[in-house]
Amino acid sequence: MEALKERILKDAVVKSGGVLKVDNFLNHKIDVELTEQIAGEFYNRFADKKVTKVLTIETSGIAVAYPVARAFGVPLVYAKKNESVNMDGELYVAEIPMDGRKPGKVIISKKFLQPEDHILIIDDLMANGYSLQGLISLVELAEATVEGLGVAIEKGFQEGGHRIRNLGYELESLVIIDALDDKTGEIIFRSPEE
Amino acid sequence: MEALKERILKDAVVKSGGVLKVDNFLNHKIDVELTEQIAGEFYNRFADKKVTKVLTIETSGIAVAYPVARAFGVPLVYAKKNESVNMDGELYVAEIPMDGRKPGKVIISKKFLQPEDHILIIDDLMANGYSLQGLISLVELAEATVEGLGVAIEKGFQEGGHRIRNLGYELESLVIIDALDDKTGEIIFRSPEE
Repeated sequence: MEALKERILKDAVVKSGGVLKVDNFLNHKIDVELTEQIAGEFYNRFADKKVTKVLTIETSGIAVAYPVARAFGVPLVYAKKNESVNMDGELYVAEIPMDGRKPGKVIISKKFLQPEDHILIIDDLMANGYSLQGLISLVELAEATVEGLGVAIEKGFQEGGHRIRNLGYELESLVIIDALDDKTGEIIFRSPEE
Repeated sequence: MEALKERILKDAVVKSGGVLKVDNFLNHKIDVELTEQIAGEFYNRFADKKVTKVLTIETSGIAVAYPVARAFGVPLVYAKKNESVNMDGELYVAEIPMDGRKPGKVIISKKFLQPEDHILIIDDLMANGYSLQGLISLVELAEATVEGLGVAIEKGFQEGGHRIRNLGYELESLVIIDALDDKTGEIIFRSPEE
């Protein structure tokens, strides 16, 4: 997606440890116009799917997933990372690895995932893909169907892409980054034909 | 706002301690069609204001604030409750009271609030108004201008409404609830003329 690539080149900041900061257009501060274009692109890529809900995970996935849900005319559900006081009722919980820390959780109220649901999973960024794997686990626990997964930016030099595609799911990444150089600030994109 | 009242009567759940659960249409699971109507109503109420950014706080404010930002054609910025690893650079931090717990924080990168900004603050629910007060503090720290505040649901039996209006700000609540009865499940709305 050219517009997203251009914006990354213009405004993203490369930090040490393979971190790419996109907080001035994709999270923390959201460029709504760009986000609408991202949502439109996701809609085009999954338009032939039967989608009953869009699923994401708090916090930064919400602003990207909301206009996708609007495009499909379906509800948005976001999984949580912590059980809040307001989460009573039965929950699906999936543990996810966290780099160098104790495992994290993704949590959803059972009532929001039904076996007849066809779920499109959307997130802003994918690195190791643990969050997406957790979301897939929630959908599987509910015996619902994953129609596909979409991420705005895939870090192609981390394992998430392989992991999710090896599970047999359709994963659409609008931009794939193959390398980040925190010395020079250079960002290398994967060519579309690869 | 009639559509929101009707939805509250149909789907909200009254819990003990003055808690109103709206997790099946306003947070956790988001009814996008209703949220679009809510955003349209906010736009109508603040259409005469000069707004350069919409500000909310993670997590549940994001889905309501996003379409408001879209309506105004301005960026959305959301304040955070915790300093994340990706928040480097200078921050504005405001402490907010938390009922029965140690004070919480609302945090924003300084670069996202400029003195020339005119800010519309949007959130889904207001009870004691501490989060909104924290957001106001961030705007004041940046020497920017608060153009107004909008919340979808105000709990009129808690202090937030008085607190914010007494500070001199224009606060628009689409629905005000004057009482919740957790024995009967009854929800009493404030009449528009009061």
